[in-house]
Amino acid sequence: MSLVVVGSVAFDSVETPQETRENVLGGSAVYFSYAASFFTGVRLAGVVGEDWPPEHTHLLRGRNIDLAGLQTVPGGKTFRWRGRYLADMNSRETKELHLNVMENFNPVLPDHYRRCPFLFLANGSTDIQLKVLDQCPGATLAVADTMDHWIASQRDLIDEMLRRIDGLVLNDTEAKLLTGEQNLVTAGKRTLEFGPRFVVIKKGEHGAMFFSKHECYVLPAFPTAHVVDPTGAGDSFAGGMMGYLAQQREFDPEHLKLALAYGILTASFTVEGFGLDGLIAISRDDIERRMTEYRKMLSF
Amino acid sequence: MSLVVVGSVAFDSVETPQETRENVLGGSAVYFSYAASFFTGVRLAGVVGEDWPPEHTHLLRGRNIDLAGLQTVPGGKTFRWRGRYLADMNSRETKELHLNVMENFNPVLPDHYRRCPFLFLANGSTDIQLKVLDQCPGATLAVADTMDHWIASQRDLIDEMLRRIDGLVLNDTEAKLLTGEQNLVTAGKRTLEFGPRFVVIKKGEHGAMFFSKHECYVLPAFPTAHVVDPTGAGDSFAGGMMGYLAQQREFDPEHLKLALAYGILTASFTVEGFGLDGLIAISRDDIERRMTEYRKMLSF
Repeated sequence: MSLVVVGSVAFDSVETPQETRENVLGGSAVYFSYAASFFTGVRLAGVVGEDWPPEHTHLLRGRNIDLAGLQTVPGGKTFRWRGRYLADMNSRETKELHLNVMENFNPVLPDHYRRCPFLFLANGSTDIQLKVLDQCPGATLAVADTMDHWIASQRDLIDEMLRRIDGLVLNDTEAKLLTGEQNLVTAGKRTLEFGPRFVVIKKGEHGAMFFSKHECYVLPAFPTAHVVDPTGAGDSFAGGMMGYLAQQREFDPEHLKLALAYGILTASFTVEGFGLDGLIAISRDDIERRMTEYRKMLSF
Repeated sequence: MSLVVVGSVAFDSVETPQETRENVLGGSAVYFSYAASFFTGVRLAGVVGEDWPPEHTHLLRGRNIDLAGLQTVPGGKTFRWRGRYLADMNSRETKELHLNVMENFNPVLPDHYRRCPFLFLANGSTDIQLKVLDQCPGATLAVADTMDHWIASQRDLIDEMLRRIDGLVLNDTEAKLLTGEQNLVTAGKRTLEFGPRFVVIKKGEHGAMFFSKHECYVLPAFPTAHVVDPTGAGDSFAGGMMGYLAQQREFDPEHLKLALAYGILTASFTVEGFGLDGLIAISRDDIERRMTEYRKMLSF
């Protein structure tokens, strides 16, 4: 079953201790879509400039990613981000941010997007996320990501969004900021009180935690020695998770836990390559093989 | 089967954002022993001063902890530590450290200690740890802990110890310091090259990683909202792990993974109370009940 994602499409310039690459295809909606495409068809909504090359369209269409909702702004430039990872590959600093066409992004979803039951609001301005929710009143599972910037600057809108979505995905720092709680178990449970039926706290190399009314659990990340570029790991996690749920058309507790595991494993491939390379190199079979290893790792 | 531990016995003064307590019974050998005592008999070797009150002896003996190797220095004062936890309860700073009788600690193990097949060298000066190894040439499983201070100041002795022990337990920061590697998977594998047959990297609230020639895995911590005092969590982890191995008298891969899980769960009780309170409040049944929850959490 198809899955709609609305988010950023970007050219990333990424500096790691080993390597620097310029203008790599990235953005939250791109990582999400590619990750989800191992599981289901994806409909991407976003905006690019005239500098968007046809090979990127080709690459995404080849993954069964619908680009009917990808706007091109004549004369505009695509969103650009430059970041640098520190030696531990966990912390990073943003060196440049050019919103370009994202500055006036106003998502208008094609009709067949609006009828999709599965919706993911990738990280972006909360007012945009709310505009998307307005267009998809019939979504059976609407999940959002957010980040510290929006939590700090658009708290009223964040609160409105939290009342309207089914699930929230955010990282550990953001969960602490959102709730004022330092303990992640408490922060996850407090976040539920704001409205969503479930909350996922991403912990990067330490895995992810899940919270719902009756459940609280944590799954570790898949251990990998080959962390090449962590960019897009969080979006790939969400893509794997939502892709699996959309494929299964179920989101009971059992499927949600499996979805969390698929999200973790999909992201583990993303960090093993630069940009999308880690995902481009694999097939669904590779994810399943890693799932077998992961289950074995967690059984005793 | 009995298990010997050599390490510190201390009076801790602990400041958390919620509470401060003075002169609480602590020390690596004490937390280790109490945690291991849920699984097996323990023989503790350490040193205290004349200020050691009989009720502590009584408490430990009541747990089937042999104190024949606990020296009392006439006129001496017991080791004292004062620490303060920051708001996140993960970082802490040492505010005072009085080695007192630990300064000249020279462990001389009673004969029945020397014949024990299971030996744990809790955190302490590496030259002392080597002296203990000299006294236990027949140990079938000798495992050590260490810390940044010794890695930085006694590197030659650390290297000698690593060639002589079966397993090493250390935390993530220490593993990076020991190997110069930032990635924990790489750090764990590099540590194996120094000699031990297995390495455990403790990640605090994020669980623990295990490394041997053919295995590399990670288990998450048991999620708890009630972190009252993290002091002794690492030693309790080691105590639960070694206690289980000594009880089972097996240390094949299956038992080692279960031991890691028991270590994680035992430590999860320690942090839920001040000092030893979290462990004093429970029985082995509580650990088994949490194991059932933990297995359920990790199955999908």
